[in-house]
Amino acid sequence: MKVVCIGSGNVATHFALALKKSNAEILQVYSRHQEHAKVLADQLGAMAIADIALIVPDADLYLIAIKDDAIASICSTLKDIKGLVVHTSGATPMSVLEGMSCYGVLYPLQTFSHSRALDFSHVPLCVEAGSELMLQQVKELAERLSPLVYDVDSIQRKVLHLSAVFACNFVNHMYAIGADILEAAGLDFELLKPLIMETAAKVQHAEPNSVQTGPAIRGDEQTMNRHKELLADRPELVAIYETLSNSIKKTL
Amino acid sequence: MKVVCIGSGNVATHFALALKKSNAEILQVYSRHQEHAKVLADQLGAMAIADIALIVPDADLYLIAIKDDAIASICSTLKDIKGLVVHTSGATPMSVLEGMSCYGVLYPLQTFSHSRALDFSHVPLCVEAGSELMLQQVKELAERLSPLVYDVDSIQRKVLHLSAVFACNFVNHMYAIGADILEAAGLDFELLKPLIMETAAKVQHAEPNSVQTGPAIRGDEQTMNRHKELLADRPELVAIYETLSNSIKKTL
Repeated sequence: MKVVCIGSGNVATHFALALKKSNAEILQVYSRHQEHAKVLADQLGAMAIADIALIVPDADLYLIAIKDDAIASICSTLKDIKGLVVHTSGATPMSVLEGMSCYGVLYPLQTFSHSRALDFSHVPLCVEAGSELMLQQVKELAERLSPLVYDVDSIQRKVLHLSAVFACNFVNHMYAIGADILEAAGLDFELLKPLIMETAAKVQHAEPNSVQTGPAIRGDEQTMNRHKELLADRPELVAIYETLSNSIKKTL
Repeated sequence: MKVVCIGSGNVATHFALALKKSNAEILQVYSRHQEHAKVLADQLGAMAIADIALIVPDADLYLIAIKDDAIASICSTLKDIKGLVVHTSGATPMSVLEGMSCYGVLYPLQTFSHSRALDFSHVPLCVEAGSELMLQQVKELAERLSPLVYDVDSIQRKVLHLSAVFACNFVNHMYAIGADILEAAGLDFELLKPLIMETAAKVQHAEPNSVQTGPAIRGDEQTMNRHKELLADRPELVAIYETLSNSIKKTL
């Protein structure tokens, strides 16, 4: 399988490395910035390009992993391509690819960072395609990378992406606030790390609502008031504390 | 070491089992409800009691793991005791124990649930005591259970407890909202589990703010607006979405 990788950020990098590992040949890496393309291309033995017109027309797969709002315009330059074109975006509908002859979506429900190697076999891949035949191709591709392959249409993918904002982005922000509060008191974030891992581990085998703990679910107003006093000089954190505590109380 | 366990809930259970494993002898388990005391006592080969007057006066350790607002009144009935009395509460100052002859605090910074066995060697234990000599006893006790022992005074402990509300209780609520959104769309919470684990794993080796991802940190207003449209019939979730997204934007 010959691949052109369009994009060179976190998602592009993790996909391209996983594809190479599955014995695909990465021909080219495109980025608007030649030097960005080169960093990834060098890891893959691929050619770095910064001019979209240089993209070869005869690859088997064109993997698009760039900013959501750039996907449509990139596609308009790929008109004469026969290979499979997939984007990897949670928030972008498949319809942006409709000008292609063979297309689909391969959305990885995972958070990627430059500094962490990721085992793709634990990444759920959500697939959608323009026809049954195209879907077969996208699934074959997905199954090269992960055993966790799910049929997810564009509307469901939007919902998944939204749920991931809560379960990943907002969660990370809660970690950041925890770290911030500790730092202001001269305490080490290290102390919170085992609790963070255990909190995530608990919901692997239980419904989150069934394992909710803390003062809000106990209705422990005294502790909640003490906490808000501690945050007295951080009104924005008091607002978050109240909003989330009230939301937890409503789950009772 | 002879131990009386005052309380029979999650925290009491996990502590008592860990103490027994460290070769302590649990003499008695007290609960207001005899049948609750019995469930734990039977696991420990201990005696179940529901009358505080039956507590033996000559144990080495009295471990108090009951509701915060009941600690002070239990203590007032323990006056003639010479052994070490510790409570395990994050939100309760050590001063409630000042009537005891030997006392301290052993606060485990972890979330406990009945259904999950917990390896105490990964539980940070925060210790405080009424004097240097008492502190030595509390530390010896803590070190029997975990290598992660930290000196934390009552004020710092309140801050730690507050930070844990964000990093554990509020995080779990974010998981619950994620699950709720998926369920309403006929999608399986299973899909989010690898993302939840990876999000927690990422901050074991990085500062949370440095690995923040998602539409808010990218300033991607279009995606945020689409998400809020998806939540149109859940105004309470739109409020949380906006509050947290605005808070993330301020970290830039």
